[in-house]
Amino acid sequence: MYIVEKPKIFRFGSGGENALPLDCGRKLYDAELCYELYGTLNPEKDNAVLILHALSGDAHVAGYYNADEPKGGWWDGMVGPGNAIDTDKYFVICSNVIGGCSGSTGPRSIDPATGKPYNLNFPVITIRDMVRAQKRLIDHFGIEKLLAVVGGSMGGMQALEWAVTYPDSIKSAIPIATTSQLSPQSIAFDWVGREAIRYDRNWNNGSYSDDATPDQGLATARMLAHITYLSDQSMDAKFGRELQEHDKYAFDFNRDFAVESYLEHQGRRFVERFDACSYFYITRAMDYFDMAGEYGGDLTAAFARAKADFLVVSFSSDWLFPTEQSRRIVRALLSNNCNVSFCEIESSYGHDAFLLEIDSLGMMISSFLARQLKG
Amino acid sequence: MYIVEKPKIFRFGSGGENALPLDCGRKLYDAELCYELYGTLNPEKDNAVLILHALSGDAHVAGYYNADEPKGGWWDGMVGPGNAIDTDKYFVICSNVIGGCSGSTGPRSIDPATGKPYNLNFPVITIRDMVRAQKRLIDHFGIEKLLAVVGGSMGGMQALEWAVTYPDSIKSAIPIATTSQLSPQSIAFDWVGREAIRYDRNWNNGSYSDDATPDQGLATARMLAHITYLSDQSMDAKFGRELQEHDKYAFDFNRDFAVESYLEHQGRRFVERFDACSYFYITRAMDYFDMAGEYGGDLTAAFARAKADFLVVSFSSDWLFPTEQSRRIVRALLSNNCNVSFCEIESSYGHDAFLLEIDSLGMMISSFLARQLKG
Repeated sequence: MYIVEKPKIFRFGSGGENALPLDCGRKLYDAELCYELYGTLNPEKDNAVLILHALSGDAHVAGYYNADEPKGGWWDGMVGPGNAIDTDKYFVICSNVIGGCSGSTGPRSIDPATGKPYNLNFPVITIRDMVRAQKRLIDHFGIEKLLAVVGGSMGGMQALEWAVTYPDSIKSAIPIATTSQLSPQSIAFDWVGREAIRYDRNWNNGSYSDDATPDQGLATARMLAHITYLSDQSMDAKFGRELQEHDKYAFDFNRDFAVESYLEHQGRRFVERFDACSYFYITRAMDYFDMAGEYGGDLTAAFARAKADFLVVSFSSDWLFPTEQSRRIVRALLSNNCNVSFCEIESSYGHDAFLLEIDSLGMMISSFLARQLKG
Repeated sequence: MYIVEKPKIFRFGSGGENALPLDCGRKLYDAELCYELYGTLNPEKDNAVLILHALSGDAHVAGYYNADEPKGGWWDGMVGPGNAIDTDKYFVICSNVIGGCSGSTGPRSIDPATGKPYNLNFPVITIRDMVRAQKRLIDHFGIEKLLAVVGGSMGGMQALEWAVTYPDSIKSAIPIATTSQLSPQSIAFDWVGREAIRYDRNWNNGSYSDDATPDQGLATARMLAHITYLSDQSMDAKFGRELQEHDKYAFDFNRDFAVESYLEHQGRRFVERFDACSYFYITRAMDYFDMAGEYGGDLTAAFARAKADFLVVSFSSDWLFPTEQSRRIVRALLSNNCNVSFCEIESSYGHDAFLLEIDSLGMMISSFLARQLKG
């Protein structure tokens, strides 16, 4: 068991000069970013790997805070001593995102201008805004060039954004199970999830109290999203049409199928650790993510500034961000003469495969990182 | 413009002998079934085609009630004089389903035992129950053998059920864009839709008044379902990432993307014509649909009684009921030496293709029906 330190908070500092400019035109004052550190930064400061998490993740990517912690970091099998992202070799930083609810400044934080929670007065943020905040953190450590920026799903969007926004600050990028723009289908799913929250009787346009949070809406949004993280195949294999507590149909509307019970459980668990306002902001940041948007849809032009080496990974059964979307990224990078490795990993786990296919994914990441460290 | 008569109601009659037995073990008393008729039954009574509709359809499959009707029947291009299902040749019956809210007995009907609406006291019905009710209607017309039973999506489930429950009463079946069992993924989507309704502040466990119906939950359920009726490709082609009213992102949570506006519109329109309790019952009937369920998962055994000729049609981009599920049906029918034609129509429209690909689908249906009439 890899025992790690509790998450830390990086404070941007108060005063206008420390405010974080945002894509929407507003600024974020007195911001804080939550992060965790693993391993040791070498004197050359060239062994730093920045890991970025998905929608509902946090800075706790690896290890256990103590022996009593029931579940370790969200990528514990991937990151740690002797693991693919080897903390004996690399200085690993896992950064949370602004807009979230896991220790960084987000919509439920106190607005310094009013002394009250922002709620929906929090500025709408983008993936690039998240990355801008992370750059401050990296500067704080005096790291001029990250060895790699690694992330799956929304973390992969951040990795791509790092590559074009701060091309001189990263040596390589590993975008996994991700996309260069959210498809209308994904935007549609996000919309329906937010509608479910919006109609929760506790929602109150985001200004709910901590005693009466819009749990039902948030649970519904999560259950919907969760379906998109799995695959038809994996649901067939895991649940099939199995009934939960009966040999025969109950002929009612309670959870009868195992898959219904599973979803309900996922929804209930999610509301214990996530906030409805953050769900609005983080999903909106993904909706707005479109690398080619400012380039008239020309993804090659969008990647023109990229200098990093890339390892792009997709999963065969991921229908949220299908392999074709990774291929599109690869083609655009190759058109810019970037050094690109690409692999579609055969997996039945759907989008969640980036969290589960640790062996095959780890092998690829570990050898890619080793080459980066040498090269 | 094909002017047609208003829908008619078939009354089962009161008294225990007229009650409809249901799979759940209960009986439905004083039931009514809504239907429409087109064309003329020939003296031999062998030119009758029964058409069955999908989740949110109704008995109005073809034509216009009058010149002022803004939109004709839901398959108007397919059914009518000179159309693929030619009402100059065939006597077409389109039957609604019990459990619905379009003229037949359903959860919002008056329970004769109490004089009040059933609401959630309505018995949970199955696809086979719907078919049992339709058989009464066909008997009422003195039709011993239908020339064909045709349906898409849930209508296709009914067509399959007709083929095994009343094998001597149909000459052929045309199940389109359908499946022999609902997958766990589809069960999961149905569950989330019902959760959205259940959490609506007007739901009141199904006992809502007509003045305060759970519209928000029902709209959310419909928006979710609607995504599954389209395809990634068709959404890309129809909406892409186009913004609704701005050249730039609005940086808020109102509908900003065209696809969001479209979905919201679909949700709003749906609640004007559909009922939340019916949504519970009809989706549950589909959840429970599993032809092989009583045969230990052996679909070949499930179709052992089938005698009809079959035309099975799927659509390449339908991810709700993918082609593989049609192939499974075809294989099981072939194992029973049934006469089966099968076609996967190339289409980008997703599940909704059965309503939109009128030309290619119509050609197949029309020649199949002509052969049935001759044979």
